[in-house]
Amino acid sequence: MEITLTGITTTGAPHLGNYVGAIQPAIAASRRTDVQSFYFLADYHALVKCQDPALVHRSRLEVAATWLALGLDIDNVIFYAQTDIPEILELTWIITCVTAKGLMNRAHAYKAAVAENLADPNNDPDKAVTMGLFSYPILMAADILMFKAHKIPVGKDQVQHLEMARDIAARFNYLYGEHFVLPEAVVDEKNAVLVGLDGRKMSKSYGNTIPLFEPEKSLRKLIMRIKTNSLPPEAPKDPETCTLFQIYHAFAATEESAAIRERYAQGIGWGEMKQILFERLNAELSEPRQRYYALLEQPGYIEQILKKGAARAREYSAPFLQELRRAVGIQPLGA
Amino acid sequence: MEITLTGITTTGAPHLGNYVGAIQPAIAASRRTDVQSFYFLADYHALVKCQDPALVHRSRLEVAATWLALGLDIDNVIFYAQTDIPEILELTWIITCVTAKGLMNRAHAYKAAVAENLADPNNDPDKAVTMGLFSYPILMAADILMFKAHKIPVGKDQVQHLEMARDIAARFNYLYGEHFVLPEAVVDEKNAVLVGLDGRKMSKSYGNTIPLFEPEKSLRKLIMRIKTNSLPPEAPKDPETCTLFQIYHAFAATEESAAIRERYAQGIGWGEMKQILFERLNAELSEPRQRYYALLEQPGYIEQILKKGAARAREYSAPFLQELRRAVGIQPLGA
Repeated sequence: MEITLTGITTTGAPHLGNYVGAIQPAIAASRRTDVQSFYFLADYHALVKCQDPALVHRSRLEVAATWLALGLDIDNVIFYAQTDIPEILELTWIITCVTAKGLMNRAHAYKAAVAENLADPNNDPDKAVTMGLFSYPILMAADILMFKAHKIPVGKDQVQHLEMARDIAARFNYLYGEHFVLPEAVVDEKNAVLVGLDGRKMSKSYGNTIPLFEPEKSLRKLIMRIKTNSLPPEAPKDPETCTLFQIYHAFAATEESAAIRERYAQGIGWGEMKQILFERLNAELSEPRQRYYALLEQPGYIEQILKKGAARAREYSAPFLQELRRAVGIQPLGA
Repeated sequence: MEITLTGITTTGAPHLGNYVGAIQPAIAASRRTDVQSFYFLADYHALVKCQDPALVHRSRLEVAATWLALGLDIDNVIFYAQTDIPEILELTWIITCVTAKGLMNRAHAYKAAVAENLADPNNDPDKAVTMGLFSYPILMAADILMFKAHKIPVGKDQVQHLEMARDIAARFNYLYGEHFVLPEAVVDEKNAVLVGLDGRKMSKSYGNTIPLFEPEKSLRKLIMRIKTNSLPPEAPKDPETCTLFQIYHAFAATEESAAIRERYAQGIGWGEMKQILFERLNAELSEPRQRYYALLEQPGYIEQILKKGAARAREYSAPFLQELRRAVGIQPLGA
């Protein structure tokens, strides 16, 4: 059966843009029965960017609770934390030994860090670059290769990492025989992008996000803050250039969107439209939001789910690691 | 109690030079009861240099058999294979995230590889450099830090690696609190160097070695090939410039050496001296050689010893890794 794998970053609480662009389609895909899917918290990756232990810990909890609250189908997929699969770290070292340093030199994230350093010619090009930042594409390759995943749904910014995983797998297979599946990136070309409070792309770096599980009261307040123009209520308005409509459209059914377009043409007051948007979002999010806050109170229950998932994942990773160790010459003496 | 740690490379069979310079003093130190010592086969390091699985496997067996045959005190020290301690690979990733890339840029082995590449200006500086070569000082730091080792007996070429391990440990302690012991290199300044068949330093790269457990017949043949000058038997000879005496001296007791010096002064035939040297070496090596070949026939027994050692080592590494995971924010949810 085809195997797919989805990594979930555990730094920071997701916002509506993450939900529409990545989480919602991934949750929907978790119900597919024609593939075996692995979903994992990439919590060893979190250490690359975050050296605040309380935040690392809190993010693991919040992100796991988010996906569970939104209905990730954990009976159908294998859902685990990367940090519960020690085989991944052993595999990371094994493939580190066959990975060309030149490959890592070309990684986008590393090159961006160097370019930023070199903006000041007095800087060392590698200033503040850790080996975590430099070599995390190898850990990512291990995440994927460990479970012989065929298809990896990714955003465009992740395509290079998939190519690196393929390179590393091919090199290993060349040296030691055909052990790894060469994974393929599945890029969602339409990849819904949501606009934020200020009309630009919703992104943490712009500070224009709406947190996914913002409590009802402050969700309303945030929506009331969305920038609009100064047309009077009765003036006809263009939905295509309106942030309120863009966000509404991302959540609404086709006929709902059509009805609102009609209202824009006839003239609608911004206050009323903001109320409509709030109600639409709240209708979609209030149930999972309730589940989310309930789950945050049950960390032990989430841990159980993760541990159960890890046990299922290790049914794949443990024997496969033994096969790979043997392939490179690490096997019990006398066996 | 003070903790010491000795890594044993598992690439290639040891020669007499390794024995005199490193193995013999390490075996003697394994009987010390005033310290807790860890001795380990660095078999995950072997993958950096060797991509021949049969050779990796064979070397593990031969090197383990060598140390056991020479009398490593396995009841007193903890003797294990690195590949049996999965915690070391997890720790490697954890400290990878706090290691500056600039630190690795300065590693001697990496710089030597780059310098060699740049001898041809058409080369990429990182030509044929793997991430294993680039980042193995981090694995080495994990080997040491995992067991809170205080003192690491090393050759001069390893001093930089120890400094790197200290740097990494200090950085981690600064970020996450005092968890690691800062290890110290103990450099054997006199570090006995043995001359080889051609009078230069005995070294695999000169092709002038005498393998440690060379069978009796070919040991004699090798010794008969040692270069000497053309002085007649009755002429007085200078022991200090004579390869035969240098090797003899490394193995003999003080009074034995004194007696042979006397014979050199009086005049000794090279044939006779070669016979004396052969007998002295053979007297020292025949028993361990016998044990060595017997052990090679019992790989399952060696495996048992290593597994027992690994179980003892993991009594240290497993709880310490839990402590370190917790320190960086990876802990069971709800615990």
